[in-house]
Parts: sequence; C-alpha cells; structure tokens
Amino acid sequence: MDAEKTQLTRLEDVIEKYLPPNELLKVKRILFGAETPVLNIAEKVYNLARERNFELRAFRFPCPKEQLRPARLVRVGVIQNKICRPTSDPIVEQRQSLHNRIGEILNVAMMCGVNVCCFQECWTMPFAFCTRERKPWCEFAECAENGPTTLFLKNLAAKYNMVIVSPILEREPNSDVIWNTAVVISNHGQVLGKTRKNHIPRVGDFNESTYYMESTIGHPVFETEFGNIAVNICYGRHHPQNWMAYGLNGAEMVFNPSATVGELSEPLWSIEARNAAIANSYYTFAINRVGTEVFPNEFTSGDGQKAHRDFGHFYGSSYAAAPDGSRTPGLSRIHDGLLVVELDLNLGRQVKDHWGFRMTQRLDIYGKLFTEVSKPYYEPQIVRNFEEKKSKSKQ
Amino acid sequence: MDAEKTQLTRLEDVIEKYLPPNELLKVKRILFGAETPVLNIAEKVYNLARERNFELRAFRFPCPKEQLRPARLVRVGVIQNKICRPTSDPIVEQRQSLHNRIGEILNVAMMCGVNVCCFQECWTMPFAFCTRERKPWCEFAECAENGPTTLFLKNLAAKYNMVIVSPILEREPNSDVIWNTAVVISNHGQVLGKTRKNHIPRVGDFNESTYYMESTIGHPVFETEFGNIAVNICYGRHHPQNWMAYGLNGAEMVFNPSATVGELSEPLWSIEARNAAIANSYYTFAINRVGTEVFPNEFTSGDGQKAHRDFGHFYGSSYAAAPDGSRTPGLSRIHDGLLVVELDLNLGRQVKDHWGFRMTQRLDIYGKLFTEVSKPYYEPQIVRNFEEKKSKSKQ
Repeated sequence: MDAEKTQLTRLEDVIEKYLPPNELLKVKRILFGAETPVLNIAEKVYNLARERNFELRAFRFPCPKEQLRPARLVRVGVIQNKICRPTSDPIVEQRQSLHNRIGEILNVAMMCGVNVCCFQECWTMPFAFCTRERKPWCEFAECAENGPTTLFLKNLAAKYNMVIVSPILEREPNSDVIWNTAVVISNHGQVLGKTRKNHIPRVGDFNESTYYMESTIGHPVFETEFGNIAVNICYGRHHPQNWMAYGLNGAEMVFNPSATVGELSEPLWSIEARNAAIANSYYTFAINRVGTEVFPNEFTSGDGQKAHRDFGHFYGSSYAAAPDGSRTPGLSRIHDGLLVVELDLNLGRQVKDHWGFRMTQRLDIYGKLFTEVSKPYYEPQIVRNFEEKKSKSKQ
Repeated sequence: MDAEKTQLTRLEDVIEKYLPPNELLKVKRILFGAETPVLNIAEKVYNLARERNFELRAFRFPCPKEQLRPARLVRVGVIQNKICRPTSDPIVEQRQSLHNRIGEILNVAMMCGVNVCCFQECWTMPFAFCTRERKPWCEFAECAENGPTTLFLKNLAAKYNMVIVSPILEREPNSDVIWNTAVVISNHGQVLGKTRKNHIPRVGDFNESTYYMESTIGHPVFETEFGNIAVNICYGRHHPQNWMAYGLNGAEMVFNPSATVGELSEPLWSIEARNAAIANSYYTFAINRVGTEVFPNEFTSGDGQKAHRDFGHFYGSSYAAAPDGSRTPGLSRIHDGLLVVELDLNLGRQVKDHWGFRMTQRLDIYGKLFTEVSKPYYEPQIVRNFEEKKSKSKQ
C-alpha cells in the first residue's frame, strides 16, 4: 500500500532513533509525562502477534500504593485495524472478514491478560459515510442487543472473561432508525447496555449527520468488574464538556473509538484525549482505525477538490493517557495493532486528591452559564469602552 | 544559576538539532500542526533584545484570505521574566526593578509592532504564596484602577498605542480584600476593566486560597481595537469549562498568565492551552514565569518533604496556539523572553465554519447536567447489571 511506503511509522520511533539518551529522557518527560514502562508479555505471544501480522505493544502506568485500598490493577486492550476486504465485496463477507480479524487479535489480547477491550468506531464496516450513499452501507447496521456482531462477541467475552466494548452501526429494530453506538458486553457475556455518539460531525468527509442523529440517552457509565467505563465516540473528543459528563457520572476509564484522517486532525489527536484525562482525572484511550479505504463510487470531500474514491490515510496512532497526564507511545500509523496497558484504577482518586480539579471546578456557575447561553437572546459579557468609542467617533 | 546549567533550554531546539530535515518536517507537523513561519523583525531589534539580555522570538500564524472580510492582522506579545531582586529586598525596590525590566522589554515589543501585550501572573512580585505568610507579601497588592503599576502602564499603553494586560495582586480599596487580577488597559491608556482568577489552586506550593478567593465577576471579554480578549488566569487552564466560558462571551484571544513549576505541571503545559484553542476556535497564549525564587523563611510544599526556601524551577516555555490547533515553538525554559506572534483574527471564524464545534456542542444538555450535578443528591447515570450482581453474590 502506498501509505506504508510514504507514511511515518510512529513519531516516538523517530525521536528515539535520533536523540542521545540523556536528551531523550528530558524530551520524553516534557512530551509524554512520567515514564510508562514496558509491560512484560511472553515472547511467544509477541511471536503469535507477528505471525498474525499485527503490532503488539504493552505498557504500564505506575501508581503509588495506598494504605487502605488495595491496588485495583486492570489490563486494558485497544485494537486498531484495517478493513480486510474491498468495499465492493458482499456485506456479509466484509463483516465476516472483520469478525475473523478481530477474533484473532482478541485471542492474543486474552493471552496478554486483558480485562477490558475496545475496538475502533464502526469496526464491522468501512467508514463509508464519506460517500453520502445510504445503499448499501446502511445494511451494515445491526441490532445492538442481538445482532450477529453482538452474538459473536458475547461468546468471546464469556470465554475470555473480558469486558468488550464494541462500537457498531446500530439499527433500532422497531423504528429502523440508525445510530452510531457502542455496545458494552460484560465479562460474563451479557449485554450491559449501550451508549451512543453524542456529537455528530459535519466536516469534510465526515458528514455523518446524513446517517444518524445525536444520542438522546445521555452519558451512561457502565459499572463492570474491572472498573467504571464510558465511551466517548469519535467527534465527541472535540467537546470537553462531553468528556466531563462521563467523569461526573463516575467513569474511571473512557474509550474514544474514532475514525479520523491525517490532514484533518492529526495535530489534534495527541492533545484532546490526553487533555480529557488530565481535566477529569481518569484514564482515556484514543483509538483510530488505520489504512486507506477505497469506495466503488466517487464522492466529494466538501473541500473544493475533485471527486475521488478514498479520503486519505487513517493514521492509527492509538494511545492511552493517565489521570496524571502521562501517556503511552502510540500504536503504528500504518499497521494493525493491539495496545495493552496495565493500570491501577486507584490513580484517579490519587490525582483528584493531589490536584483537586473536581473540588475547584465550580460546576454550578457553568451549569447556569451554559443554560443562559443556550437561550435565544443571550447577552455575552463584553466590556466595551463607550467613552473611547464616543470620543473616537467625534474625531 | 543552577537551573541554567542543568535544565534543557527548549524541547524544540533538541528536536531540530538531531532530526534529519525530512523526518523533522513530519514530526513537527504531528507535534505542532501547520508550520508557523518566522516573522520578519529588524536585526537591530534582535540586537537590542540581546543587549537587554532577553530572548526575542517572532512567528506568524498563516490564515487564508476571505472574499468579504479584510484580514484583521494583530501582533500579540507575551513576556516571561525572572524577578530582578532578592525577595528580601524592600518591596518598593522589588516592584520598581520589575517595572524597569518590563519597561525595557515592552519597549522592544513596541519596536516589533506589538498591538496587544500580556505579562505573567502577578508580574510585579515574586510568587510568594508558597510561603503562606501574609507579611510582607500582601503589601504587593495594589489598586487595579489607580495603583502604581497601572499608572505606570497607562502611560506606556498610550505612548506605544498598545493594549496591555497586566496581571497583578489586587487590593480592593474599600474592603482591603485581595484578589488575583488582570487589568486590561486600552491602547489609549484607559483602564478598560479587570478580570479575576476564577479557579484557585490548593495544591503543593500553590495554596493560594490562603490569599484570595474565586472571582465573582464572571468571564468578561474586553472589546479592544485589536480584537476581543479575555484572561484565564493560571490554574483556570485546568478547567475546560472556564476556557469555554470566555469563548461563549466572544473572546478571539485568551491569555493564560501563569506561574508553574516543572515537576508539577510541565507535561500538562503544552496540552491544556492548546486544547482550549482547538475546542473554542480562538487563539490562546500560555505564559509562565521563569527562574527560581528563593524566600527568606523556610516553608513546606505540602508534599512530605523537608522544609525549604524555594519551590523549584519556573520553566517559562510560553507559547501561542491557534484555532486550527497549530502552535508556535515555546520561549526558553530558562531565560527571560518576548514572544511576538502575528495572527489574523479571521482564522477563528474560518475554523468554526470548517469544524463547526460551536454548532455541534449541545450546550443546553450540558447546562442542565452541570446544574443537576451541582445539587446535593445528584444520582450519576450508572448502568449496573443487577442480575449479574445477584447471581454473583449467591455463588
């Protein structure tokens, strides 16, 4: 693939390759925060990942011990992957190929001891919304509770004792309304519930409002055996108040399954999910798909360019950020990958005890302000110097 | 000074020194966004800065032309500096020495064509709040409207045709209440108004709640001849909703005058003000003081360490971020500096037209949620699997 030749594999690799060790340490501290040591995973597991042609990287977020609470260690996995078949193939084959691909990666996640695993946005399909075509892409939508993908994963979740977060295109059975949804399956194989995309983009290739509306089911947090989790789907990462809502509802880990391309968003990628981890004292996981997806019919990107059949390179680079602002290196910009992170949920409260952002955030005044601003005739608090204006207009 | 020997001067310098040109370009794009070209400043001005022993750096944020609106070019200056005298010197001399220092830097800012200039937090004094002593530090507090510092700057503002943002420790004349305040002086030398710190830290050396309370005067935006400006003082940068409030009131540029040290916050520094620029489609300016300040009496940092007389190295690194997520390199981590940025205010609306975050932000639901959460018995939206819990407890 073209991208694999011209694209940078990973920013961190370049820095590590060229910087002398002493400078590297300082630069990494400023860029990435406290060190995230490599997590020990058996060599045979790495070999299996290599055989299956995906990158496996594993890190630890260190966390001090407490006196009263035992450590609550959790291993989280996030998976980024390309689509496996041309977008013109029959839908059932495209979907099956992705089920197979995720199956083999998830199997390695299990060997890494992963407790909670999340995939990329709309993982069972190409990100076809750039086409503005409803056919055949709407056929990928399926029932959150009983669709083929959920049934497939319920099995694996129980077998692997793993909570699975599965972002899919959802079709509501009775209304046929379509949603951008994440299904949360418990480690006993039960559907705990679902959450939906709260903020829908209307930008460039991401005119997704053609397909689905904003969620009406709030900001649910799912209590699992491995901590309280929430899912902020894709474009919601640009909205700090959305991240904050999950924190207010008690999330300890927030996944951000995404699909986004280089020219549009890459300089924002390393900022937003990490800022959310800092501002809300929880763990965040930014997950982006990878590769280039080519569609049967030409479409516009709404950017004044000629019609074309792909919308550029999904740059992967999935990463995790901790409440203290540190982050792991990213997965590759060009390859499928599994990122495994061992973390202690206790760090969230420790950071709250240290920084106190929840104590100092004055939610009441912002609740009032946001409500006022939403009204039709909000008068912004602008200070104008009328005296100066007057004397100026007299000149 | 010790720090000058052991500290890294600037992250960007290290990367530029070691990376080959082709890799450097790619790494910089991912790390910093669209390139910020160097702004042309006469060599004699650089020489003057060198003579006066501070770093001068100047950049441009590029912005496409529009058909209907002419470009609204503005030059913004931010200044970071060390204190000039030992903290045990008479207060009037400490303050005078800082007036002199800022005077000579501001003079160079004028030569650079700066239209709006902002200094660091509490710029007329050492950041003495770590001591928890009220005496003599409260004596630095002065009247926002008519104190010696404001009188000094009103003169310069009119003379230089420059809007000046002056963060000081304020004493209210009638009540003797002390505030952490920024005074905004118009380019005609009039006090446009003031704004106060909205979020007060209680962390480590920054137990500032000993000295002043949270602002009660909202999130004012100041309409000036060079654009609408707001000031988010220091610790407010950790609160995304605070940044957002200034945007909702129409800010096009938000200054973040700060005082913060390495071990505490440095990995957060490059994230927060930049995330705010992205989320709110405005320009942000993160300004930190520089150097190490030693106090007459020992104090605790509230971190279990021995009592000591300084609280580490203020790491400077002041920078500017644009609505498109790009940022300038930072000023030095160890030297006084003036950063000059030429920008086009039009970029804010262009980015809003492109990304549409204001359109998609759904403020009404967050207004309601934040208000609910502020009430005494908010029930978080948590999904629990009671069936699983029951069967588990039976095991």
